[in-house]
Formats: sequence, C-alpha cells, structure tokens
Amino acid sequence: MQKKNIVFIAKSLDGFIAGKNGEIDWLHAIPNPDNIDMGYNRLMEEVDAIIMGRTTFETVCGFDIDWPYSKHVFVLSNTLKEVPQKLIRKTTLLNGSPQQILTKIHEGGYFNLYIDGGRTIQHFLKEDLIDELRITTIPIVLGGGFSLFGDLPKPMEFDHIESKVFLNQIVQDCYQRRRQ
Amino acid sequence: MQKKNIVFIAKSLDGFIAGKNGEIDWLHAIPNPDNIDMGYNRLMEEVDAIIMGRTTFETVCGFDIDWPYSKHVFVLSNTLKEVPQKLIRKTTLLNGSPQQILTKIHEGGYFNLYIDGGRTIQHFLKEDLIDELRITTIPIVLGGGFSLFGDLPKPMEFDHIESKVFLNQIVQDCYQRRRQ
Repeated sequence: MQKKNIVFIAKSLDGFIAGKNGEIDWLHAIPNPDNIDMGYNRLMEEVDAIIMGRTTFETVCGFDIDWPYSKHVFVLSNTLKEVPQKLIRKTTLLNGSPQQILTKIHEGGYFNLYIDGGRTIQHFLKEDLIDELRITTIPIVLGGGFSLFGDLPKPMEFDHIESKVFLNQIVQDCYQRRRQ
Repeated sequence: MQKKNIVFIAKSLDGFIAGKNGEIDWLHAIPNPDNIDMGYNRLMEEVDAIIMGRTTFETVCGFDIDWPYSKHVFVLSNTLKEVPQKLIRKTTLLNGSPQQILTKIHEGGYFNLYIDGGRTIQHFLKEDLIDELRITTIPIVLGGGFSLFGDLPKPMEFDHIESKVFLNQIVQDCYQRRRQ
C-alpha cells in the first residue's frame, strides 16, 4: 500500500505560521468573498486521516464551529488524557515518536495522511517523514512568530510539482520529497 | 523622480540565503545547462546602482571572476577603509543609517536601486525601505542558516505581482510593498 504524508499549511512571506503572539488573523488578510477553495477540498478527498498536535487540536476545539473534519483525526499529545465526549468516535489520542505513531496509524488502515500543526510538522520533517509540502503563502511579512520550518540535521531536497495563484495574491506551491 | 528599492535574492524553501556554515553551493542545486537568465538581466537594466553590505562585497571579490557589475556599487561598511585599487571607480564606500545612505545615493542621481546582501536587506526592511521583493526559491529545505528575513517591529503587507517557474523547479515570486 502506498503511503503518503502531506503537509498543507499557510505561512507568511517570512515563513511564519503564527505571529509573535500566536495571532492567525493575517491568514485572512486577503478577502475571499466567494469563499473559493484553495486545495483543501481536494486534500480532504485524498487523505484517509489527519494527524495533528495538541495545540492545533485545542485551537480547533476553541473555534465556535461544528467539528470541521470529515476524516478521522489522530491527536498527538503526551499530556491529554481524553478528548471531549462528542469527539470520542472522531478522534484518537496518540503519543510516541513520529515513526511509532505512523506505524500505529498504518496498522489501522490509514495510509494517506494530512500532517497538521507547527510542532508536529517540524517533528515529522526532522525524521524525514514528509512526502509532500503544499505551502500557501500570504503576502505579508510578519517580522516574527512561530516558524513553519525548524532546525534539521541535514538539508532535504524536494521537487517542485506546481504553483498556483489564488485571488491574484496568494501563491500555493506544491513540492515532493526527492528520495534517492 | 520615482525611487525604488528592489530586493532580488534566492532563498531555500525554509527561508535561508546561506547554510549553517555560510554555504551557498545549494543555490546551484538545480542544473541550468543553458545558463538561462532568471530575471537578473532585466533587473540590471532597471536599476541605476547596487547597494550591498561588506560581507556580500567581500564574497564577490573572493570569486575568481572579473568584477560582475555593470552598475555602480555602493558598499556599506563601518570598518572598510578602502576598496581594491581596480574597483575605485566602480564602487563607493558608505556608512550610516539606511535612510542616510539612501539620501546620499539619491543626491548622486541614482534612484532605482538593487539592495543586496542579507544584513543590508534586513536593515532596509526594518526601516520599511524596500519597495519590491523578487524572491527566487530553490526547492531545498536547508534546516538552518542565515535567514533572508529578520525581526520586524510590525508586519508589512505586500501585493503579489507575479510568479514564474524556471527550469521546472525554481519558483520566483515578485511582491510590491503595499503602502496606504
């Protein structure tokens, strides 16, 4: 079975996924009155499940919306003991190394995975477990915040797959990990 | 007279312009056998002069090539006292704040400027003196190094102008500073 771990995330021009105080309002700096989809729907069709860190999970839980995910969500946390009652069948708490987590998820029959959340993405990149990067760039230089990319033991080459421009302002680039 | 300060620079996917040990060999990771131009020639036609920091100047001087610039080069340094004899007519040493430097350069009749070098770009961005960013992205995640962008007192919005893909691998994005 082919396995694939996909990152789909928005960043500022200077590579931050959240501002100095965690702010993410700038993600909506470009008006999208017709609510056009920028690849999220296609992603959701492609993946079997979502892996996200606790911070992202708690952020989404804090939004005043219904649970937005149609695919099963694996929440990575060393501290959470349980999820809200209404999410028990939609989420699974996991902990361990990225490789241990992937092994468990693959055993469950989930192979195409959407990897979400800043720390989770950095952990997976560090173990060279990301196959595809789909990065949406908002045309703002934040000047500080939480970086999409973190420190790595060695460089990793990718192949450019495609670039799109949405709303005349937002560039989305897709890259695949080049493995020898 | 319209004035414009343009950044034209290549970065890694994770936003570095040089690796952890200053390495820049990855800039040529994508073979360019026909030596296609990626906007540099057009830039050189557009600008009246080049502003670069001492580090970039010394790096270029260290290359085993003839002096590569057809436009006058202003070298920013607080420590350099003189430039090599053969460059005396092609370069001018300057120091001061970015605004002081620009005033002097404008007085000399140079209005469209190519701003080069990591620290110089960061200093000019910090003073909100960059009008256009032309950023070329090499599809490699370096995992550390010298960042293109530095800390800023507040976010700055840009307008996306265009994106191009060179050699099927290298994305180049042009952004203009949005000023109210």
